[in-house]
Amino acid sequence: MKVYESYDDLPKIKLPEGQEIFISDSTIRDGSQMPGIVMNKGQKFKIYEFLHEIGIEKLETFVFNERDRAAVKLMFDQGYESPEVTGWARAVPADIDMVLEVDGIEETGILMSVSDSHIFDKMGLTSRGAAEEKYLNALQYAVDHGLRTRAHIEDMTRADNYNFVYPLIGKLLEIDPKCTIRLCDTVGFGLPFVGVDEPYGIPLIVKHIKNELGAVNIETHCHDDFGLSVANSLAGYWYGANWSSVTFLGIGERAGNAELEKLVIFLKERVEGFEKYNLESISKFARFMEKEIGIRIPRNKSVVGKNIFAHESGIHAAGVIKNPFTYEPYLPEKVGGERIFLIGNSSGIEVLRHKVQETLNDLMDIEITVGKHDKRLRSIQKEIQKLYDTEKRVSCISDEEIRAYVEKYFLFESVVKRDMHHADIDEDDE
Amino acid sequence: MKVYESYDDLPKIKLPEGQEIFISDSTIRDGSQMPGIVMNKGQKFKIYEFLHEIGIEKLETFVFNERDRAAVKLMFDQGYESPEVTGWARAVPADIDMVLEVDGIEETGILMSVSDSHIFDKMGLTSRGAAEEKYLNALQYAVDHGLRTRAHIEDMTRADNYNFVYPLIGKLLEIDPKCTIRLCDTVGFGLPFVGVDEPYGIPLIVKHIKNELGAVNIETHCHDDFGLSVANSLAGYWYGANWSSVTFLGIGERAGNAELEKLVIFLKERVEGFEKYNLESISKFARFMEKEIGIRIPRNKSVVGKNIFAHESGIHAAGVIKNPFTYEPYLPEKVGGERIFLIGNSSGIEVLRHKVQETLNDLMDIEITVGKHDKRLRSIQKEIQKLYDTEKRVSCISDEEIRAYVEKYFLFESVVKRDMHHADIDEDDE
Repeated sequence: MKVYESYDDLPKIKLPEGQEIFISDSTIRDGSQMPGIVMNKGQKFKIYEFLHEIGIEKLETFVFNERDRAAVKLMFDQGYESPEVTGWARAVPADIDMVLEVDGIEETGILMSVSDSHIFDKMGLTSRGAAEEKYLNALQYAVDHGLRTRAHIEDMTRADNYNFVYPLIGKLLEIDPKCTIRLCDTVGFGLPFVGVDEPYGIPLIVKHIKNELGAVNIETHCHDDFGLSVANSLAGYWYGANWSSVTFLGIGERAGNAELEKLVIFLKERVEGFEKYNLESISKFARFMEKEIGIRIPRNKSVVGKNIFAHESGIHAAGVIKNPFTYEPYLPEKVGGERIFLIGNSSGIEVLRHKVQETLNDLMDIEITVGKHDKRLRSIQKEIQKLYDTEKRVSCISDEEIRAYVEKYFLFESVVKRDMHHADIDEDDE
Repeated sequence: MKVYESYDDLPKIKLPEGQEIFISDSTIRDGSQMPGIVMNKGQKFKIYEFLHEIGIEKLETFVFNERDRAAVKLMFDQGYESPEVTGWARAVPADIDMVLEVDGIEETGILMSVSDSHIFDKMGLTSRGAAEEKYLNALQYAVDHGLRTRAHIEDMTRADNYNFVYPLIGKLLEIDPKCTIRLCDTVGFGLPFVGVDEPYGIPLIVKHIKNELGAVNIETHCHDDFGLSVANSLAGYWYGANWSSVTFLGIGERAGNAELEKLVIFLKERVEGFEKYNLESISKFARFMEKEIGIRIPRNKSVVGKNIFAHESGIHAAGVIKNPFTYEPYLPEKVGGERIFLIGNSSGIEVLRHKVQETLNDLMDIEITVGKHDKRLRSIQKEIQKLYDTEKRVSCISDEEIRAYVEKYFLFESVVKRDMHHADIDEDDE
């Protein structure tokens, strides 16, 4: 018999391949390409600081303009060991030269688009061979100039992998056996399931790159057009990748990227061996992005949304009051969050009882227990229900309003109506 | 050799089990439990109308108050074949009676919490046996009164499946062999990967319920606490489930549920045989939820976010101008969306050229081609870049501003500066 009644009871997961794994951040590169977003030097630096606190191992940045180079300088000035600051370049020597000109950068990503639509339509090349030559030359150039490399294999999930991409990767690895092969699921077509054929199956692709081509560094970079970016990033880890490139809050082009915070909470809370990450500052990080960068965070966004430890509905709130484990995936303090109980349209008697009791204790400064059949409590419930039923109220009941109800029913009328255990019918108590 | 250069070239996916599959909506039930959300009768009815347009097969609703019952009546009054309106009850006869009292409802879900924390802490029962008895009695009661049934096996991904839940499901199926077994991943602990052990592995659980217990109707209901709700819903379909319970925009408790729109776009665009769904009204549906229900939709939310067909950054916008397939997962009109090009901090010369040319054509009402080395175009680019570099501009450049630049440089100065093919250095053109 297995009993899971607390977080410690829940079995931790082991990654099947057992490899050491890492996170690479692209918030200030792919993230800042999100339409309408501009990050200044100080903001990019602040993001770097948050990533450092979390324990993220690597980040990438553009170095094409003075603002970006100034941000990089600020980062290096801190002397932190992580995240490592790496560059980004198109597959042309001029871009790689710009990376080389930045003191301290030792690794660069190089964009290598591999789908036919990207080779012919976007880049205007006339053959796959021309693309291959361009990419091999660029990688050789970077290696010759002493850089560690990442090959950003763009749009690989809509490419002819067996006939073009795998042979290309083989040649890249001949030039630099340690080159990180970044599997870019550029338009989100990847699928996390074993048995899905090329070009979509992330497990199939990762296993091929690892086992058939012998890459030692494999990284996923997954977009969320079909809502599968996080699952695809995890599928990468599951089947042999050791890196995943993500952005905080998943910001980025179109539907954005896999969310850094989802990967980290999953690894830290659910998988064996991830004490290296620390998420306590993540709520602060989210508020920073909201306030300073102008990112709209929905209330129900995993890990960072304002609702994720808010309980209003009858059954859920009653469960959490008894034991948070019933309806919380982990304790709020793990991510610097806070549990709140809200009184609204779907609230049952238990959360209202809890809130009224708390308010009463606050007001009178003594320990008072309010029973759920208390007539005054039921009167408050009726008043609130009436607001939603007939008066078209749509917002939650504020703490100030609860206090007013408590004063009205408990403090002023308490002498008159004292039958605290009146057994009226209990319609929605659990 | 495989060539994927258009949407029609991309291979469609076959579900490995080949079963017929359906979608069950919980927007007006689980969705409306989202803290701070209140939906009135008319709004619930409007949601029903949108679901009908999409072709969703089923929805569930509470029927505990007059508002909900009035909404249900409106729905039945339409005489639509789908979605079927079904009820929701706790495992007590009183709740099932309330469902029975609503004319027209033929199916109800029944809540059956199976994790020890829910049985002991939340419900205050003293044994698993007591819970089992309660659930079997409730199911029997529903069947005896002529209802089709769904067993909502709550918190199954943190429960003792082999020792308690599977035997329970076996007994439920003895009472009603057609009972839909809803696998509730209540706190989002499910994982979509084959080989993941109980209690987390969705493939393992679905296969067991189907193959070992012989259920003919299996439904997933996945929460997004770890960002895996969509992948887990798909994993259900992949390994044998025929239903998935979801909400529009993923609204719901905490981090919410799997998003209806993500499942539907995936099935419709990527999987063989889903002509039955129609997504053209989905953008309108999203705007309705935003405006009428007060749901905050982030710009980068898959399928419905305002950014998902917006292109600003140099490489992406240039690709889309040449061929939308390069960076769009499907054409905007599929979801009633619209492609827009934005000029901002990360824009390259190609998107600016495109926008300037478009504006010029509008203003002069003739076909004009602007070259990317045009000096006037480059002057506009410099003015814009200066806004971001030195004047701390953070928003995109509006169409009105572009028009002003075009008037300034092309209409008033065009006679003076006509060297349209000046070859100045081209830094970021692709």
